[in-house]
Amino acid sequence: MALSFTLSRFVELLGGERHGDDVLITGVSALEKAAEGEIGFLANPRLRAQLQSSKAAAFIVRPAESASLDRPHIVTRDPQLYFAQVAQLLHPRPVARAGIHPRAVVDSLAFVAKSAQIGPGAVVEAGAQIGERTIVMANAYIGEQVEIGADCLIHPNTSVHRGAFIGDRVILHSNAVIAGDGFGNAWAVDHWEKIPQLGRVLIGHDVEIGSCTTVDRGALNDTIIGNGARIDNLIQVAHNVQIGEHTAMAACVGIAGSTKIGARCQIGGAVMISGHLEICDGVTVLGGTLVGKTIREAGVYSGSYPMQTHDDWRHNAAHLRHLDELAKRVKQLEKEILVLQYPVKKLEE
Amino acid sequence: MALSFTLSRFVELLGGERHGDDVLITGVSALEKAAEGEIGFLANPRLRAQLQSSKAAAFIVRPAESASLDRPHIVTRDPQLYFAQVAQLLHPRPVARAGIHPRAVVDSLAFVAKSAQIGPGAVVEAGAQIGERTIVMANAYIGEQVEIGADCLIHPNTSVHRGAFIGDRVILHSNAVIAGDGFGNAWAVDHWEKIPQLGRVLIGHDVEIGSCTTVDRGALNDTIIGNGARIDNLIQVAHNVQIGEHTAMAACVGIAGSTKIGARCQIGGAVMISGHLEICDGVTVLGGTLVGKTIREAGVYSGSYPMQTHDDWRHNAAHLRHLDELAKRVKQLEKEILVLQYPVKKLEE
Amino acid sequence: MALSFTLSRFVELLGGERHGDDVLITGVSALEKAAEGEIGFLANPRLRAQLQSSKAAAFIVRPAESASLDRPHIVTRDPQLYFAQVAQLLHPRPVARAGIHPRAVVDSLAFVAKSAQIGPGAVVEAGAQIGERTIVMANAYIGEQVEIGADCLIHPNTSVHRGAFIGDRVILHSNAVIAGDGFGNAWAVDHWEKIPQLGRVLIGHDVEIGSCTTVDRGALNDTIIGNGARIDNLIQVAHNVQIGEHTAMAACVGIAGSTKIGARCQIGGAVMISGHLEICDGVTVLGGTLVGKTIREAGVYSGSYPMQTHDDWRHNAAHLRHLDELAKRVKQLEKEILVLQYPVKKLEE
Repeated sequence: MALSFTLSRFVELLGGERHGDDVLITGVSALEKAAEGEIGFLANPRLRAQLQSSKAAAFIVRPAESASLDRPHIVTRDPQLYFAQVAQLLHPRPVARAGIHPRAVVDSLAFVAKSAQIGPGAVVEAGAQIGERTIVMANAYIGEQVEIGADCLIHPNTSVHRGAFIGDRVILHSNAVIAGDGFGNAWAVDHWEKIPQLGRVLIGHDVEIGSCTTVDRGALNDTIIGNGARIDNLIQVAHNVQIGEHTAMAACVGIAGSTKIGARCQIGGAVMISGHLEICDGVTVLGGTLVGKTIREAGVYSGSYPMQTHDDWRHNAAHLRHLDELAKRVKQLEKEILVLQYPVKKLEE
Repeated sequence: MALSFTLSRFVELLGGERHGDDVLITGVSALEKAAEGEIGFLANPRLRAQLQSSKAAAFIVRPAESASLDRPHIVTRDPQLYFAQVAQLLHPRPVARAGIHPRAVVDSLAFVAKSAQIGPGAVVEAGAQIGERTIVMANAYIGEQVEIGADCLIHPNTSVHRGAFIGDRVILHSNAVIAGDGFGNAWAVDHWEKIPQLGRVLIGHDVEIGSCTTVDRGALNDTIIGNGARIDNLIQVAHNVQIGEHTAMAACVGIAGSTKIGARCQIGGAVMISGHLEICDGVTVLGGTLVGKTIREAGVYSGSYPMQTHDDWRHNAAHLRHLDELAKRVKQLEKEILVLQYPVKKLEE
Repeated sequence: MALSFTLSRFVELLGGERHGDDVLITGVSALEKAAEGEIGFLANPRLRAQLQSSKAAAFIVRPAESASLDRPHIVTRDPQLYFAQVAQLLHPRPVARAGIHPRAVVDSLAFVAKSAQIGPGAVVEAGAQIGERTIVMANAYIGEQVEIGADCLIHPNTSVHRGAFIGDRVILHSNAVIAGDGFGNAWAVDHWEKIPQLGRVLIGHDVEIGSCTTVDRGALNDTIIGNGARIDNLIQVAHNVQIGEHTAMAACVGIAGSTKIGARCQIGGAVMISGHLEICDGVTVLGGTLVGKTIREAGVYSGSYPMQTHDDWRHNAAHLRHLDELAKRVKQLEKEILVLQYPVKKLEE
C-alpha cells in the first residue's frame, strides 16, 4: 500500500513517453475521484472533459490527447493496458508468508514448498504438491495427488479435487470447485447408474478462475483449460471440455460436456454452449446466446430475444408460436398475387 | 421453538383485530397441514374453501373473510405480511452465543464485539471488525479490514474479502462470496493482463444475500448494495454495480459491470443485465429476460422465447433466421397489391 | 486402483456374453487412448472404425459388432451401461476410514455412526445424525438436527443446514448448499419483511447433487428431491419445489418456488422453470428453454432463440419487436386479395 513510483520510473519499466513534471505517484484512481498523488487514464476520447476537471496528479493518455494537456502525463497507445500495468506495480499480488499455519491440516505425504503459505483451516491431502510461493488461503481443500505450480493464489473455501493439475501463477477465487465429478449417468431399466469420472482437470499457466465456478473432471479423458484463459464467476465447465489459450468468458456461462472452445475467444455473460461442439479460434459470442452448433469461422455471433415492455412482448411473442403458419400464409399470398398479375396463363406450382 | 403467543398479544404487537376466542398459538403452518396450536393465513380469496377444512387453531384473514368465519381469527389488510410477522415472533432469528469458539482463528488485530459469536473453523483476519451480536458461523472467512455491523448472520463457508463493508442485520447465506476480484483484464498483444481490482463492496443495512451468490469488489470505484435489498441464490453482481434500496432479485440473475439498478425494482429469476446500463426505480423485469439497454421508465418488461413442443419449435424457430426476408416479402406484397387495386395509375415506389 | 477382473468375472457379475480370450482387465478407457490391460466400449456404430485402431485389451460392444470383431470382447445390449458398471467395479466409491478426525468439530449431542468418517475441519452440530459408512469430508458443515443416511459422500466445503433429511448413498458435491433459507419476503409499506423459512429439505436415496448447487428449505412445507434424482452443478432448487424420482437435470438450471417436477424427466442445461407449475412424468426439456407454464403431457419441449452471426441476428431480431404488426399486415393482405379475386361480390368481414 505504501509503494510509490515517479512517472519516469513507470516509463523506464513500461515504456511510453513522459510529458510535464516527474511527479510521484502513490495510487491509481478513476478520473472523477482521483486525489493527490494518484494517476488516472483516459481511454475513451469522448470523456476528454474529465481530464480538465480531474484532480489526478498525472494522466495516462493516447498521443491525440497530449498536445492539449498541460499537466503531467504519460503518452501510450493503449492507456487502459498501461494503467493496468501501473496498478499492478502499485498493488502487487500478495506475497506468500512462508509456512504452514498451525491450524492447517497437511498430510504427512503431501509436498509443500518451503516458500509456500498454507492458511488456517486449509486441508492438503496425501500426495498433493504445492509449488513455491503459492498461497493456499483459509479453509481451502486440496485433494489427493493435486499438483499446484508456483506463485498461485488459492482463495478461501475453494475445493480442488484429486489429481487436478494447476500450472504457475494461477488464481482460483473463493468457493470455486475444480475437478468435482462430471455429470455422467447411464440409464439402467429403472434408475441411473453413475459413470465413474476418471479423467483429470488440467489447468495451464496464468489462468484465473472465478468465485463459485465449477470445472468438472473428465469422464475418461481430461478437462483442459489453456494458458492465460480467464474464466469469470458462476461458470460451469463440464467434463472433457477444452478451453483454448487466452480465451475469456464472462460470468454465468455454461459449457456442456466434450465441447472444444478455441484460443482467444470471447464468450459473453450467460452464454450457454451445448455439448460435443467445436468453436474455432477467435470467436466472439455475445451475452445470453445459446450456442447449439459448431462454429467454424471467427466472427461475432449472437442470438437473444430482445426486451420490450411486457405488453408489447405479449403481443409479439404470441406470434412466435405460429411463425411457420405465418410464413406459409405469405407464400400462399405470393402465389395468389402472381395469378392475379398474370391471370391468363395457368401457373405451375 | 417453545415460544407461544395469544391472539390478543399478536394484536397488541402487530395491530389487526381479533375475532373469537383468544387462543394460544405455538406455531405457524400452511392451512392444509396446520395442527393444534398453529395459525394459518388466507391471502388468495379463491382458496377460501381451505379455511373450512383446515385444522388450524386460528387464522389471519382479510376483512372480507371475517363475517363468514366462526373460528378464532385476526383480521388485517395484508394477511401474508401479518403472517410473516407472526412467524418472526414465533421463530426469532438465532441469538448469538457470545464468544469465540476455540477452533475459530481470529487474528490478534481483529476486533470482535463481546456479544458476537464466532463459530468453529471461522477465520477472521487482521483489522476485521465484527459488530455486536453478529454470528459468524462455521468455516466462514472474514478477510482483512472487513467491517461487519451488528446483528448480522454470516452462514457457514461464506467468504468475505478484504475491505468489504457490511451494515447491520445483514444475512449472508452459505458459500456466498463477497468482494472477490471483479473480472478486469486488458489485452496486451498476446495475452490478458489482470487489472487489479481496488474498489470495495459496500452493503447497506437489512440486506439478505443468497447462497453461492457472488458480489465482486469494484475495479476503482465500489460495488454498492443499498439498504433492504434482497438478493437470492446463485446471482452474479459484477464490479461497480449499484443496486438500489429494497430492490429484490430472484435466483440465477447476472448483472454485468458498472450497471446501476434503481430502488424498489423486482428482477425475476435468470434475468441477465448487460454492463454500463441504468435501470430506474420501480422497474419489474420478468424471468429469463436479457436486459440489453437502459430502462428509463418504471413498468414491467420482458423478453423470452415461449416454450413449445420441440416439433413446433423446430418449425417456428427456423423462420427466425429469415425474419428480415419475410418482412421484406410482406412489404413487396403490399406494393404489388396496391398496383392491382389501382391498376391505371403508376405508383411511385 | 490396483483392482483387476477377468472378462469372465465381469460376465458372472454383470451378465453379457464373452467372446475371445479371458483377458485380465485393470482399467477402463476411451477407445482412442486405451492402453494395455484396459477395456473400452463402442456405443455409437458410426465410430466402429475406432475398434480396429484401438489398443484396448478388450471391448464392450452390441451384438451387431461381435461377428466382425476378432479380439476379446463382451457382447451386451447397452455397452455404455455395461461400461459404467465395469468402471464402478474397477473404481469403487471411496470407503470410509471410520473415525472422527481430531480437527473435526463434532458436538457432543451429535450422533455419528461408528463406521462413519468425519474429515478435518468438518463441523457437525447438535442433534445431527451421520449414518454408517458415510464420509463427511474436510470443512463440510452439518447443521443441527440434520439426518444423513448410510453410505453417503459429503464433499468438502458443503453446507447442510438445520433439519435436512438425506437418505442413503447420496452424494453431495463440493460447495453445495442444502436447506439454506428460501427466498421469502413480504412487502411492508416501504421495505421487505423476511418470511421465516420453516420447512425442511428431504432428499431421497441414491441422489447426487452437484457442486455449488443450492436446494432451499421449504417455507412452510418441505422441498423434496425423490430417490435416484441426478442434479448437476450450479442449479437453484427453490423452496417447496418437488423433484420426482430418477429425474435428471443438467447444470445451470433454475427452478422457482413450489414447482413440482415429475419422475424420470430430463431437464437440459440452463433451463429455467417458473414457480407454481407442474411438469408431469417423462418430460424432456431441451437446454436453454424457459418453462413458463404447466406441462401435462410427456414429450420433448423447447424454446430458445437460434444463434446467428451478429449481423444476421441484428436484421432479424429487430422484427421481433413488431411481429404483431407484421401478422396484422399479412391478415390485411389476405382480405384485400380476396376482394381482388372475387371482385363482384361484397365480402363479409
